Amino acid sequence: MNLTEIETPSVLIDLDIVENNIDKYQSYCNKKGINLRPHIKTHKIPELANLQLKAGAIGVTCQKISEAEAMISEGGIDDILITFNIFGQKKLDRLRILSGQVKLSVVADNIQCVQGLSDTFKNEKSQLTVLVECDTGALRCGVVTPREACELAKKISSLPGLSFGGLMTYPPISQSEKINIFLGKAKDLIEASGIPVPVISIGGSPNMWEVEKIPLGTEYRIGTYIYNDRSLMERSNCLESDCGLTILATVISTPEPHRAVIDAGSKVLTSDLFGLKGHGYIIGFPKLSISNLSEEHGCIIGEGETGLKIGQKVRIIPNHACVVSNMMDEVMFIRGDTFVKKQPVVARGQVL
Amino acid sequence: MNLTEIETPSVLIDLDIVENNIDKYQSYCNKKGINLRPHIKTHKIPELANLQLKAGAIGVTCQKISEAEAMISEGGIDDILITFNIFGQKKLDRLRILSGQVKLSVVADNIQCVQGLSDTFKNEKSQLTVLVECDTGALRCGVVTPREACELAKKISSLPGLSFGGLMTYPPISQSEKINIFLGKAKDLIEASGIPVPVISIGGSPNMWEVEKIPLGTEYRIGTYIYNDRSLMERSNCLESDCGLTILATVISTPEPHRAVIDAGSKVLTSDLFGLKGHGYIIGFPKLSISNLSEEHGCIIGEGETGLKIGQKVRIIPNHACVVSNMMDEVMFIRGDTFVKKQPVVARGQVL
Repeated sequence: MNLTEIETPSVLIDLDIVENNIDKYQSYCNKKGINLRPHIKTHKIPELANLQLKAGAIGVTCQKISEAEAMISEGGIDDILITFNIFGQKKLDRLRILSGQVKLSVVADNIQCVQGLSDTFKNEKSQLTVLVECDTGALRCGVVTPREACELAKKISSLPGLSFGGLMTYPPISQSEKINIFLGKAKDLIEASGIPVPVISIGGSPNMWEVEKIPLGTEYRIGTYIYNDRSLMERSNCLESDCGLTILATVISTPEPHRAVIDAGSKVLTSDLFGLKGHGYIIGFPKLSISNLSEEHGCIIGEGETGLKIGQKVRIIPNHACVVSNMMDEVMFIRGDTFVKKQPVVARGQVL
Repeated sequence: MNLTEIETPSVLIDLDIVENNIDKYQSYCNKKGINLRPHIKTHKIPELANLQLKAGAIGVTCQKISEAEAMISEGGIDDILITFNIFGQKKLDRLRILSGQVKLSVVADNIQCVQGLSDTFKNEKSQLTVLVECDTGALRCGVVTPREACELAKKISSLPGLSFGGLMTYPPISQSEKINIFLGKAKDLIEASGIPVPVISIGGSPNMWEVEKIPLGTEYRIGTYIYNDRSLMERSNCLESDCGLTILATVISTPEPHRAVIDAGSKVLTSDLFGLKGHGYIIGFPKLSISNLSEEHGCIIGEGETGLKIGQKVRIIPNHACVVSNMMDEVMFIRGDTFVKKQPVVARGQVL
């Protein structure tokens, strides 16, 4: 099948670019001496997670238990970090089942979650590894002081069924000095209590090429590098030719010479702006912008004539690749201009 | 099952509120003497479409062929308007199959689409009804002048396999004067050419309680009224107690007294802002705001202490209900505090 025969809108994944991105960033991490633990949220496809592991990743990151379940059952993945506070008996029960199948670790930032984990794992044969999530400036989850990190690490070490695994943070951009102070103090306090800190897990796509700025980091969690997207292009983290996920859309209306409408709206591209203007980059049309989305329509405007014709197909690099994966039950694997196969997005929509 | 036993995040649909919303707006349309043709994009559930039809709706609106297919195969719906330019042989073939099963009409705003429809339907027993989409200010699809509307209506009337069905527009808010002039002129021009204009299809949730402002309208297309949402609350189109779709979420972190984090992020709430500040209204906590979303986290801030505890469940009215439905493979039907059943969102993710 020729790419032009694919019904639109569709999400195309170019495996040549994907393989290149995987190898390039794995080589970078190898050179920097940091472990790579890719986040599967970007692709949600066990087959691609296995490509990442084959290239040298030490395991994967999932955000929810249901994502981990999909990666294990469909991909045979055997080393998973879930970077989310697990709360509630149903989720804890599912976590216990998973821990019997693979090398599993989780994070926590509060005593209630840690207590729930201990209550669930205290009678298990092997301990659950728990890392303390630290807020080093992102203002999301995480203990907010090194002292709190130490107190929680001590608690984890003291409770039955649990093993303290280290520190984890989602570092905000350009605050490396603050992050280093936080992580350094927390590590010192914990080690001074006689508890080793085997892992310091950092990550994030925006600062993917400057991992040396947080020298305490032992592993890097990152998702978007496998596909890249417009937000990373705009930060000069990648080139247009490194973008492995594109949306194929058809021009379905040209109401005025300077306006056109495509059959892809927020149900494919999503409303994520990531601080950018417009809803994606149209390959080959740098002067056009996707000015507005409704659910099934994308409105394109140009300063002059768009040059687009009804029926014409365009390819779009989205602002944010991860959220696009989550909109589609299946994507199309391609290599260059060649269709390879339809691929189910196995872990799509997993929120539990 | 008690509502508090439902795993989070989940989308709850209160059938008591839904039934009330359906009856209330149907009564309003009956009183105003305008036909109601609900848009299924809000719920994507055939069972709810059938409630709308049972209450008196003349048919439903779908945005894509795949949505119509789902409504027909799973719900036995028999009157569908697809408000989208249909382009491409695969879609046209699917449209032809559907037209043999139900009363089907579509819209078009250009000659290329109309020609494709005619080529597909010219040898069919019954004609396909085609309405001309008019842009009355929304700057999306639609012919931009009454004269163009007339030319396209004449073309539809002249081509084999097609029957001109009238005019359709998605009217922008508060531009009723401009809309009336456009529709009036277009209707006059078309009728002066000897072609009747049986239907003038208008719609939209923001102006749902002022249909009399466009007196030429013969049918009203509207989706959100079945659930309502924060955007309609803010416009005073509905009360909090009219909101039938809520997101059930759990507080999973309280890093600081004025901050909390829930287990629902943009994968449930979506990034749709609709011009509002914050990402939803937390029922019972009018002074808290959902300040930031990542895919699986919702960050809540208060001016003072949030008053939220880890493990606490909250219910959120989203900014935009339709896009939330599209994130979930299933929702939970409830009545008040009583769980009714899990309900698959049959037409979720249908973009073709």
